[in-house]
Amino acid sequence: MKIAVLPGDGIGPEIVKEAVKVLGALDEKFELEEAPVGGAGYEAKGHPLPDSTLALAKESDAILFGAVGDWKYDSLERALRPEQAILGLRKHLQLFANLRPAICYPQLTGASSLKPEIVSGLDILIVRELNGDIYFGAPRGVRQAPDGLFEGAREGFDTMRYSEPEVRRIAHVAFQAAQKRDKRLTSVDKANVLETSQFWRDVMIDVAKEYPDVELSHMYVDNAAMQLVKAPKAFDVIVTGNMFGDILSDEAAMLTGSIGMLPSASLDKNNKGLYEPSHGSAPDIAGKGIANPLATILSAAMMLRYSLNKAEQADRIEKAVQKVLEAGYRTGDIATPGCRQVGTVEMGDAVRAAL
Amino acid sequence: MKIAVLPGDGIGPEIVKEAVKVLGALDEKFELEEAPVGGAGYEAKGHPLPDSTLALAKESDAILFGAVGDWKYDSLERALRPEQAILGLRKHLQLFANLRPAICYPQLTGASSLKPEIVSGLDILIVRELNGDIYFGAPRGVRQAPDGLFEGAREGFDTMRYSEPEVRRIAHVAFQAAQKRDKRLTSVDKANVLETSQFWRDVMIDVAKEYPDVELSHMYVDNAAMQLVKAPKAFDVIVTGNMFGDILSDEAAMLTGSIGMLPSASLDKNNKGLYEPSHGSAPDIAGKGIANPLATILSAAMMLRYSLNKAEQADRIEKAVQKVLEAGYRTGDIATPGCRQVGTVEMGDAVRAAL
Ligand SMILES: CC(C)[C@H](C(=O)O)[C@@H](O)C(=O)O
Ligand SMILES: CC(C)[C@H](C(=O)O)[C@@H](O)C(=O)O
Repeated sequence: MKIAVLPGDGIGPEIVKEAVKVLGALDEKFELEEAPVGGAGYEAKGHPLPDSTLALAKESDAILFGAVGDWKYDSLERALRPEQAILGLRKHLQLFANLRPAICYPQLTGASSLKPEIVSGLDILIVRELNGDIYFGAPRGVRQAPDGLFEGAREGFDTMRYSEPEVRRIAHVAFQAAQKRDKRLTSVDKANVLETSQFWRDVMIDVAKEYPDVELSHMYVDNAAMQLVKAPKAFDVIVTGNMFGDILSDEAAMLTGSIGMLPSASLDKNNKGLYEPSHGSAPDIAGKGIANPLATILSAAMMLRYSLNKAEQADRIEKAVQKVLEAGYRTGDIATPGCRQVGTVEMGDAVRAAL
Repeated sequence: MKIAVLPGDGIGPEIVKEAVKVLGALDEKFELEEAPVGGAGYEAKGHPLPDSTLALAKESDAILFGAVGDWKYDSLERALRPEQAILGLRKHLQLFANLRPAICYPQLTGASSLKPEIVSGLDILIVRELNGDIYFGAPRGVRQAPDGLFEGAREGFDTMRYSEPEVRRIAHVAFQAAQKRDKRLTSVDKANVLETSQFWRDVMIDVAKEYPDVELSHMYVDNAAMQLVKAPKAFDVIVTGNMFGDILSDEAAMLTGSIGMLPSASLDKNNKGLYEPSHGSAPDIAGKGIANPLATILSAAMMLRYSLNKAEQADRIEKAVQKVLEAGYRTGDIATPGCRQVGTVEMGDAVRAAL
């Protein structure tokens, strides 16, 4: 089985290296091939998603992704900026199902800006659609306003859209995820204002008929943003569109206080997937050897479980991470008084040793 | 000076009554006229925003608004549902500037789900554009997908759009608000993905030239949702579009833990405005006499300050609210151990007495 390794920018290379180290310590052996992406892709080949990188991603069984982005590319035109790599991979490989767990590790409850009783034991899953919505909808651009109060003025515009098959396929992913958990699914939309949302809601209600064991509820996105702050543990699985999911999954991740711990998966319909930490490229701390590699290591575990059918190996990695946390190992971002503060490489070594 | 009083649904009538009581205790006298809106408008006249209510709102100098919405109208077609009243008022009266303070009252820090050190002293202002964006953009509806992978399938769609004059006018409101505060403005967008956002950002940068004393920064909406949880006090004024503002202003309100305390103003270009509490109609507790009237009373204070040019009277009301909090008066939503728990009417009486 072949894994495409795309380290990317900022802390990407450092943290991916540790995940690769952990994979190398398993009994199973995988074929790993590395390629540049994001700013690194632009430097190497003039494009954030070079053809050769895309080809490698297509022919691999799974993709281990670091992070992309750096201030130094801010002045490039949008089509060449690092984040186009991740948007391109999602679209070209039809990775439509983003699974973003927000888990508060018992040892790290104190890292949250929320009160311990609000977040301790938090374990929710956000299922975000990744291929549709206003991210890719056309037409879009800058034009003269065709109508309205400011007809004729210059305006920027985009199209939000969701077709029935797109909503159906993400609905199935979400209902099936809920079946494996507490069987409660909250679909988040803005159906009181948006036609796209009303349409989304109608399809969700229709798909729900196939999952009588799952309790479906609906929530407006503004209310969801509030309830996540007020009582996040009340959720089990949340399903939502690309735009709202972008916002809510980051909000939910930050509730835990330890975004450096949170992995993510982006899957196609055959469970081929891209795996990346939920945090970004953090160019400010790149190269200092202090980044937390655990989200990437846990992303590798998700990869073993979802795309490579090696659930046991995934369990081993997750248990090893638990062990190093219990042993008090902490990178700076999750350091607590009295902990054993370590750098990126030592953390990777500790997980490898705990395997 | 004439004030249109639109109590609406749920707890709306109870809380507006207390605000009217407080207004009545001032030396200044105002002409108040009441009209039905939301579900109450639909019951009385067959429409959530009856013509007579809209006419009254138009001819008044300011509007004191309660809240709209009740589960019992969920099955109505969207055009007749209560929330259309607030959307209609914003649009017809061109109330484009929504000012939503998120303040953590020292006496109520404990009510927050965030740690006291994260929220104590919190005082940020969110300036949300209310007349544009995907809320009103056309075309919108359900159609056969004109292109893409699922061409021909049924899809829901909406149009996000912002014209230059629309961005300019909300930018001026936000910069001027920042000038009166800590002179820091964060414009929130999703310029790495949306054309509308890139356009918005370009106009913000242009308007900034007229306000050299204000420090403008830009933040992506997903990051803003995170930073609000992580370090909300780092913000001063946030300016953003209608859709992102809907989400972020509610998230910010909930950080305080006392959304029952937070007023809001929606202003047109002449500072005529609609004033309403940031919380909703809470139909579950309607008629029980337990709703917190303070957000509505504080909205009346905002009305005096922004639309009626009675800043002194506004101060008096705000100080009276401070006094009743200091005296330990609390409605159930903000009750703390050892407080003096009161109902809606007693709270209104306490403020009136403290004036
Ligand atoms: C980098 C950006 C385009 C991307 C998104 O908005 O999807 C990121 O925020 C994410 O959530 O993976
Ligand atoms: C009721 C709804 C249409 C409205 C909005 O989305 O603007 C509300 O959420 C608000 O923020 O005032």
